[in-house]
Amino acid sequence: MKRSVLKFGGSSVADFMKIKEIAGYLKSRIEQDEQLIVVVSAMGKTTDDLLASVSHLTADPNDMDLAMLLNTGEQQTISFLSLALNDMNVRAKPLTGYQAGIETTGKHLKSKISSIKTDFLEELFDSHDLLIVAGFQGFNKAGELTTLGRGGSDTTAVAIASALDCPCEIYTDVTGVFSTDPRIFPEAKRWEKISFEEMMEMSALGAGVLETRSVELANNHNIPLYLGKTLSKEKGTWIVPNDQMLERKAVTGVALDKEMAHVTITYPLETKTFLTDLFIKLEEAEINIDMISQIQNQDGLQLSFTFKESEERELNQLFDALKESYTNLYVKIETTYCKLSVIGAGMRDMTGVASKIFKTLLASDIPFYQVTTSEISVSYVVDEQNGEKATRLLCQAFNL
Amino acid sequence: MKRSVLKFGGSSVADFMKIKEIAGYLKSRIEQDEQLIVVVSAMGKTTDDLLASVSHLTADPNDMDLAMLLNTGEQQTISFLSLALNDMNVRAKPLTGYQAGIETTGKHLKSKISSIKTDFLEELFDSHDLLIVAGFQGFNKAGELTTLGRGGSDTTAVAIASALDCPCEIYTDVTGVFSTDPRIFPEAKRWEKISFEEMMEMSALGAGVLETRSVELANNHNIPLYLGKTLSKEKGTWIVPNDQMLERKAVTGVALDKEMAHVTITYPLETKTFLTDLFIKLEEAEINIDMISQIQNQDGLQLSFTFKESEERELNQLFDALKESYTNLYVKIETTYCKLSVIGAGMRDMTGVASKIFKTLLASDIPFYQVTTSEISVSYVVDEQNGEKATRLLCQAFNL
Repeated sequence: MKRSVLKFGGSSVADFMKIKEIAGYLKSRIEQDEQLIVVVSAMGKTTDDLLASVSHLTADPNDMDLAMLLNTGEQQTISFLSLALNDMNVRAKPLTGYQAGIETTGKHLKSKISSIKTDFLEELFDSHDLLIVAGFQGFNKAGELTTLGRGGSDTTAVAIASALDCPCEIYTDVTGVFSTDPRIFPEAKRWEKISFEEMMEMSALGAGVLETRSVELANNHNIPLYLGKTLSKEKGTWIVPNDQMLERKAVTGVALDKEMAHVTITYPLETKTFLTDLFIKLEEAEINIDMISQIQNQDGLQLSFTFKESEERELNQLFDALKESYTNLYVKIETTYCKLSVIGAGMRDMTGVASKIFKTLLASDIPFYQVTTSEISVSYVVDEQNGEKATRLLCQAFNL
Repeated sequence: MKRSVLKFGGSSVADFMKIKEIAGYLKSRIEQDEQLIVVVSAMGKTTDDLLASVSHLTADPNDMDLAMLLNTGEQQTISFLSLALNDMNVRAKPLTGYQAGIETTGKHLKSKISSIKTDFLEELFDSHDLLIVAGFQGFNKAGELTTLGRGGSDTTAVAIASALDCPCEIYTDVTGVFSTDPRIFPEAKRWEKISFEEMMEMSALGAGVLETRSVELANNHNIPLYLGKTLSKEKGTWIVPNDQMLERKAVTGVALDKEMAHVTITYPLETKTFLTDLFIKLEEAEINIDMISQIQNQDGLQLSFTFKESEERELNQLFDALKESYTNLYVKIETTYCKLSVIGAGMRDMTGVASKIFKTLLASDIPFYQVTTSEISVSYVVDEQNGEKATRLLCQAFNL
């Protein structure tokens, strides 16, 4: 019997009509002799509403309490979906993260999955056609409820698919993976297939379709991943192992990340422990950074990196703490930049990509402040106001 | 260190302002070196709203899914209250029914508590001042979420107090126990003390302040029970063991239950197995009945009892099933009656109570259709339209 994990995001289950439609679709899949595990997020804006309501009670919410509160969002969706399915005579069973045995480690609101009770899930399939698992949530060793942080429901879905060794289909309101954001460049192409490697770069660089950790997890376990539009007949995109890509284009896509910010730190040459201290503290605070580069000039050493705009407060707290030990630190945070990335698994075999990018930006007088490269991507920090224009120019230049 | 269980109902935690006020009150108790376990219900009309939303998905909701859905209501309250308390530097910890180890047996929506993990609660007090437990909920042997049914949060509170052997304070929007419902008879007296025995009759007979099972549980474990108004300086009522009542009035109160319905079943003399079958089925369906009486007349045997109006649908299903085996059954359900009860622990030692009741009803031309008596109460089935008038007349007659 074929088995798949399907994930539906918050906008796909935003109201009762949509939940009923999804239940109908799931029933049609079950009738084709499939076994399904369905992962759902909280309905529509539920999570945001819950977070907003907390401000009535405290300005500095406790992580453990917040995780417990947010858990109720997905628990409501799984109950509603199960009610709809059981009404259609599908033998469905809803499971919270705790019940599905999704054990996590790390901070309450940024947990990572450490194990899943697959034996229990297998056992449930003896008497059920379909299991509904609450996305985004788990529990830690102390038995406390946790959430997986950003993009958490995708991670839940891919982790379950990995544990059960079956394909994973992620449904959102986007039809698949495009060469760039169609809202910026309407002529953008949708790929039928893309390699894990490219998808990881696309995600990491802010394409926003799927969080990097989900793609990484699917890649590590060799789980076929599908991205499609909820209840749409249009074909989506399959993300496949790198060696299954027969034909390669030099450049697959252009990703624009506006949610990033940029920091430059200047510090004297003689403060040898600074870098180590900084990176230990970044790890402790679980702040993800990117595009790290360092140069030495007449002022001393200068370190730049990008980070998520949403983590600015935490980063500032971190620098305040560091300044107590390193008094000669000079920190400049810039939030009006954005990150533009050109991605392509074929890039490493080809030449001319970087020079074409430079020429394109130069021809339109778009300045850039930092450049970093990976095996299959080149990233630029440019002014936020130039981001969309540069994206369109590069898509045209590379015929995407 | 003094320890108490405090319970706050849905209207006491209906909005964030009220939750903050309760948090402030709890902090003041903690500052007097108390250890508290606080049990809360879902905020305001949350449970009703959740139930109403289910009708968009199914007309015949699955109990397991419904229990899981309703569980989110209390889980939100405990999270919010804990956020408010932690903001005030009270070391609070929220616990779902599952986390508090409240194991239950029976139907998903009408479960009974079978055990509580007191060791775990005791351990938590090493590092916390206050534990917040979600009322109304638990889990069964299969690890599924359950609810305790009607008045469930009171039961949670009293069960925890019983397990930890400490007093239990129940806060609602009523100031305590009155001789009768003050909305019906404004001159009704509030008792400072009442015996468990009387309180059990009051609850069972529909006084509506507290469910019978909670009072019974407190009585069985000899747990002092307090009923008071949330955040009010007015004194409430302590419910104490029977032998602690020094002075006894013949009649303590009059209870009116409008939520009841009445059934009369007529069946032929020769169907000997009928009664056994009926009561087995009632037990299986967990339908509570009261005021059972049986007479024999020219038509055969006639059995009457009262039941909760809300269980009419289930009772009808039960009779439909019985009619398949007993074709000569005649069933008449009457929902326009109500039950009027006169209660007093001193009643057994005194005479004249019953005759005074009969005289009072007769003088005002109020007919009654059934009478039953217990050691400390007399109950009458009268027309619903006469219920409030009869309550007032009896309160005046007994100077309550």
